[in-house]
Amino acid sequence: MRGVYLVTDRDLCCNRSLLDVVLQAVQSGTAYVQLREKDLSTHDFVEEAIAVKKLLLPFHVPLIINDRIDVALACGADGVHIGQNDMPYETARRLMGDRAMIGLSVETWADVEASQNLDVDYIGVSPVFPTPTKADTKEAWGLEGLQKIKSFSRHPLVAIGGINAFNARTVVQAGADCLAVVSAVCSADDPAAAVINLNDIINSALREK
Amino acid sequence: MRGVYLVTDRDLCCNRSLLDVVLQAVQSGTAYVQLREKDLSTHDFVEEAIAVKKLLLPFHVPLIINDRIDVALACGADGVHIGQNDMPYETARRLMGDRAMIGLSVETWADVEASQNLDVDYIGVSPVFPTPTKADTKEAWGLEGLQKIKSFSRHPLVAIGGINAFNARTVVQAGADCLAVVSAVCSADDPAAAVINLNDIINSALREK
Repeated sequence: MRGVYLVTDRDLCCNRSLLDVVLQAVQSGTAYVQLREKDLSTHDFVEEAIAVKKLLLPFHVPLIINDRIDVALACGADGVHIGQNDMPYETARRLMGDRAMIGLSVETWADVEASQNLDVDYIGVSPVFPTPTKADTKEAWGLEGLQKIKSFSRHPLVAIGGINAFNARTVVQAGADCLAVVSAVCSADDPAAAVINLNDIINSALREK
Repeated sequence: MRGVYLVTDRDLCCNRSLLDVVLQAVQSGTAYVQLREKDLSTHDFVEEAIAVKKLLLPFHVPLIINDRIDVALACGADGVHIGQNDMPYETARRLMGDRAMIGLSVETWADVEASQNLDVDYIGVSPVFPTPTKADTKEAWGLEGLQKIKSFSRHPLVAIGGINAFNARTVVQAGADCLAVVSAVCSADDPAAAVINLNDIINSALREK
């Protein structure tokens, strides 16, 4: 795994449609899109997920659904991202199948240790920095926490939480394989330019490694 | 279908545990249990659903999950109940399989007509009477609406909304096959006695038909 991992937030799209922001993001090289909806009805979430899946298909960008395995199965998503309050990993794997991509958020060191025994496709290091877009998380890992996880874990690391163009380089240097961003792209004046800039930072930081 | 169909509401259990109320209800002859949770995390909903499924197993009472097909698949539920804002019926059937029990709420006459073309196992006539336990529904059907649906629909009818021991007889007389109850059992001083009483009313009303 590598690159920009967009986590959507309709409310942060600054009056642009979510589909429009996602399209701009994938046209500019976003590697993964995670659809996160906490307030939509199942009906509307499924409808949105089907539309996003259709949009991503020609770009071969995987669609990952946050939490809702029913929505993922309904829209033919490529995977799910689960947190510690979501479906237990083993159940998620059983329902999604062996080929699905399953990511798991780690919020404590116990979560990191437990994830070593799971065939997750990546772990989401959450949050790296304190962030207002996800208020239900534990203490931020910081760059030191990220480094500690990198030296311990056998899984690819998707860093999330307060990541933007100003700190992206340090997050990659600390061991992140992917940078998950919400407002840094959803709320950007130019989402396409924001993705291109983040990819440049990631690639240059990886070259220096 | 026939009998008492319990729809759970943790907040209406008057400080008793949901499992305790469900146990009393099924020991006294409840025919179906629908687990409805709108505020729990997926993790906690799955955990609760697994516990209820285990409790119901020796009674051979089907467990039906409201809306969440992921939770239904995770706990091995017997079916799902979907509303007009939930998963589209065809998708629900595809994910749940042919043997699952799938009920669909009808809130308008257009819903009733559309359901004729679907292989649903029952339709939920919702609400029969105005009710505070489900505020997001349309106008109440009333007994006349229920009668009209009975004379038109090919599906068993589960009546829901404001049903209690005082109006149960008229609801059965108007054509309900099952009486779905929430507070009439969850909030009863004696949930077991409430179910026995409702079953007596149903059976006597059916004998008189």
